This record gives sequence, C-alpha cells and structure tokens, in this order.
Amino acid sequence: MKAANVSNLVYLNGDWVADENAKVSVFDRGFLFADGVYEVVPVYQRRPFLLNLHIQRLQRSAEAIGIESIAAEFWYQLVSDLIHRNNLDDCLVYIQLTFGADSQRSHLPTQPLTPTIYASVSPLQVHWNTPTPVKVAVLEDIRWHRCDIKSISLLGNIMLKREAAKKGALEPLLHRNGRITEGASCNYFLVKQGALYTPPADHLILAGITRTWVIQLARQLGIEVFEVVCDVNQLQHADEVFLTSSSREVQPVGQIDDIIVGNGQCGVITAQIAEAFHASKRHLIQE
Amino acid sequence: MKAANVSNLVYLNGDWVADENAKVSVFDRGFLFADGVYEVVPVYQRRPFLLNLHIQRLQRSAEAIGIESIAAEFWYQLVSDLIHRNNLDDCLVYIQLTFGADSQRSHLPTQPLTPTIYASVSPLQVHWNTPTPVKVAVLEDIRWHRCDIKSISLLGNIMLKREAAKKGALEPLLHRNGRITEGASCNYFLVKQGALYTPPADHLILAGITRTWVIQLARQLGIEVFEVVCDVNQLQHADEVFLTSSSREVQPVGQIDDIIVGNGQCGVITAQIAEAFHASKRHLIQE
Repeated sequence: MKAANVSNLVYLNGDWVADENAKVSVFDRGFLFADGVYEVVPVYQRRPFLLNLHIQRLQRSAEAIGIESIAAEFWYQLVSDLIHRNNLDDCLVYIQLTFGADSQRSHLPTQPLTPTIYASVSPLQVHWNTPTPVKVAVLEDIRWHRCDIKSISLLGNIMLKREAAKKGALEPLLHRNGRITEGASCNYFLVKQGALYTPPADHLILAGITRTWVIQLARQLGIEVFEVVCDVNQLQHADEVFLTSSSREVQPVGQIDDIIVGNGQCGVITAQIAEAFHASKRHLIQE
Repeated sequence: MKAANVSNLVYLNGDWVADENAKVSVFDRGFLFADGVYEVVPVYQRRPFLLNLHIQRLQRSAEAIGIESIAAEFWYQLVSDLIHRNNLDDCLVYIQLTFGADSQRSHLPTQPLTPTIYASVSPLQVHWNTPTPVKVAVLEDIRWHRCDIKSISLLGNIMLKREAAKKGALEPLLHRNGRITEGASCNYFLVKQGALYTPPADHLILAGITRTWVIQLARQLGIEVFEVVCDVNQLQHADEVFLTSSSREVQPVGQIDDIIVGNGQCGVITAQIAEAFHASKRHLIQE
C-alpha cells in the first residue's frame, strides 16, 4: 500500500501521466457535450470485482451513444495495468470513454474522431461489516429518460445529490409521479414480509452491477425478489430499505425524510444480504 | 478578416492560448459530470447581438446549478477581447463556465473550487436573405426536465440530433406525449391564420434569445403571438413553421417527416419576421 499523498498515474489516450498533469482538449466532446460514458469498478486486494459485467455494460453504453466498439481484452488489460502501476490493493477503477476531440464545437462531429480513453484509480475503504443506516430524501426525478446508459451527462444527478445533501441526506430517493426510480448513484430495494422488491431495469434506471449481484445472492439465500414498480409510500412503510452501489455495496436506509424505516436499525434481511455480499468478496480474494 | 487556417485564441482561466493548446484537467467537473453551463453569442461586424440577454441567461443558468456569480462587466470585457484578439468581424462567441476542477472525482466537490472559464470564437456565415426551408423529424423528447438551464449536459440533445440527421433532417422536432417542446438546439414557431404560436417558456424548453426577440419583433409588426401548448398535429397542419436559434436566426421549415408544411416554401409571415430580424442586425451594425 503506497503513501496517501503520492500522485496516482492515470491512463489517457495511450499515455501514463501523473493525475495532476492529465489534461484533455477543450474540444473534447466529453467537455463540451457530455458525449461520453463511464464505469466504476471496485477492486479488492488487487482483484477487480465482477469486471466482466462492468465491461459488458461499458460496451452497451458506448454502443447506445454511437462510440465505436473497443475489444473487451483492451479493458481487462487496462484495469490490470492501472492497479499494478498504482500499487493499490483496494481501490475504485474509473474508466471514461468519450466520443473524442473535434477541431471545433459542432453538435454533430465534423470529421471521424478517435474516442478519448481516460482511466484512473482512487483508494477504496472496503466494508466488512454492515454500515450504519443512513437517511435519504425523496425528490422528484428530473433526469433524462435514458438513465439505462451510464453516461457522463450527469448534471441532473449532481443537482439532486446536492439537494439531498442540503436536507442532511446521503442520497436522494427519486420518483417520477410517485413511482420510485433510483438514487443519484445507487439503486433501491425494500423488504416487505420477507421478500425483496426493487424497480424494474427499464430506461429510467441504471441497472447497477451491485443490484444484479444482490438479486442473485438473495435468490441463492431463498429470498423471493420481485422487480416491480414501487411507489414512495411502499418504501416509507417497508420493513427494511437498503440501497446498493459499487462503492457503497449494501447500505441500510434508516430514515426517509422524517420517517423512520422499520425500527431505524439495519434489518435482518438486509444484514443477511450484506453478509452474503462480504462473503463473495472474501471468495474473490481467496480464489 | 483573417485567413481561415490560422489558430484562434481562446480564453481559459485567465490565459490566452491557441485553441489546439487549450486543455483542461481530467478532474474538471465539466468533463466528469457535465457540471457546467454555456452561451453562444452571435457577433455581426464586431458587435455582439443582444449580449445583455445572453449574459443574463448565463448568470441565471450558473445560479441554477450553484456556481458563484461572476459580474456582468467581466463577461462584456471578455466578449470584446475575444472579438478583437481574434480579429473576426462576423463570428459566434462561445462561453463555457464549469464548477471547476477538484483533486479527485466525487459527486459532491471535496473542497471549495474555482470555476473554469473557457471562451472561444468561430466564424459565422451571416444570413441576409431568408434561407431555403429545411426538413425536421418528429422525435420523442428524452431529455431532462430542466431544459430551461443552458447546461453542457447535452448528450440527450446530441443523440436526438444524430437521430434526426439519420432521417435526413436538420433538427428534431421534439415532443413529450404529443406536446411540442423544442429542437435539439432551436425553438419552434407555427403560423396559423396569421397568428404566431410557440410553446411556453417552462422547464421543458430553453427560452432562446432569438425566440424572445422574434416574439418582440412579431408584436411590433402587429402579429399576434400566443405562448401556448402546441401539439405535433398542429405543427403538421400549420400554414407555416419556422425555427429560431442564435446561429440559424429565423429558419423556415418546409417539411416535417414526410409531411410538406404549407406549400413547402417560406411563408409570408415567416419572410416578414426574417426581414425584420435582418433589419435589427443592420440597425446594430449601423449604430
């Protein structure tokens, strides 16, 4: 494990540079139009977790916005290089792919462009115990209707995250006309009478890799999982609520605005799923 | 007027640099999160057109996403410097303001940041005659619900513009459940029995400066203007349709998908408004 104050090496279009020196053209379509996609991959003891699912999603996102395909092998090698060059055991790998830099600002590219590839790492505090329940704030989902694309066009998410923070909440709990979608950077699950419920993976949510993994773990544990429309009222009156993301893993929710969920503590089913999640990390490390 | 192949000077955080050397940190929140706003200002014979309205809107957009206020005088000076340093008579000034560069990627900034200010110019072909009518394509509006903010979170607009281009259309004609909103980078007007109709300036459209100006010009010409909900069907059966933007000014629409609008030519009212628009440019130049 290296010292905290040393620069990380980032990958940028074939070069390895100290992060403070990594710069992109002002004509990069990522900077001008948010014309790009990204992934965040957790790495435990130098082993990327569910990397194949992240790379598949990156390729789906890129295809959806029209960026030419890059072979999966390239991404696997890049992730491996990032971890080893930066000498980090537990980290988050960040990958961003934009449409590339044009010679001028134009809604449609003026020429064939080479995609910009940027990747970096940041230290990760891995959870081995279930974290303390957090508060979330119900907010109207103002984002676009293609949240299934993991794009860098994130201003809506950022504004909602800021609004939630002003209310003392870790995350917004977003809804469209009362129907729950997700958070600004997480998915939601509720527990009612021993079963799990989560909104379906349509165009209005990002199908989180942790979400997918939790559904699989729950089913292995014999817990029923329903991917169905959930409304705000159901979450407020659930026995348990938790959120999932690659960096937060399984995070219990103790409070929705001023309403305490269950008894405000981490529920039994949430704890069971979180423990199964920790076990799958342990399994990865010991492989 | 300078030669076409000479680099333009851009302004970036206090420096003047050749455009090909202008670069921003990969940690700029504009690049990572589209956390920024912008303006495009037309300049005729070195005189910026309706600059005060553009600067007011820039300040409203910045305030809406939480970027600290920058005095109007700064922007006026910057626009003047850009025009004179680049020695361009007719041009488009582009101004982009982002939340700034952090030391790491984090949804909420990890420290107080200095906004990134980037501004550049590009040559402008000024219209003095009403252009040939164009085709537009009806598409579902997939964008976020704060289109009133002129943000760089533009991937939705770009995807829609690409889809329209595939259909041989200059612009999409966007609707939500049949209600017209706007284009990917323009507003729409329809003419019916001598009166003008255009969707209201709510959160679902960007209140274009050219839109505002056209409404004012039309009223000066004694033409009634209604800012009301318009549906796709009404545009398809209008006597005339035109779109407006700072770079396209008043652009007649001759075809919506396979439907010819009116007789497919520029209509009488559209021509009258376009002529009034040209006159206001002439007035500016001769001031």
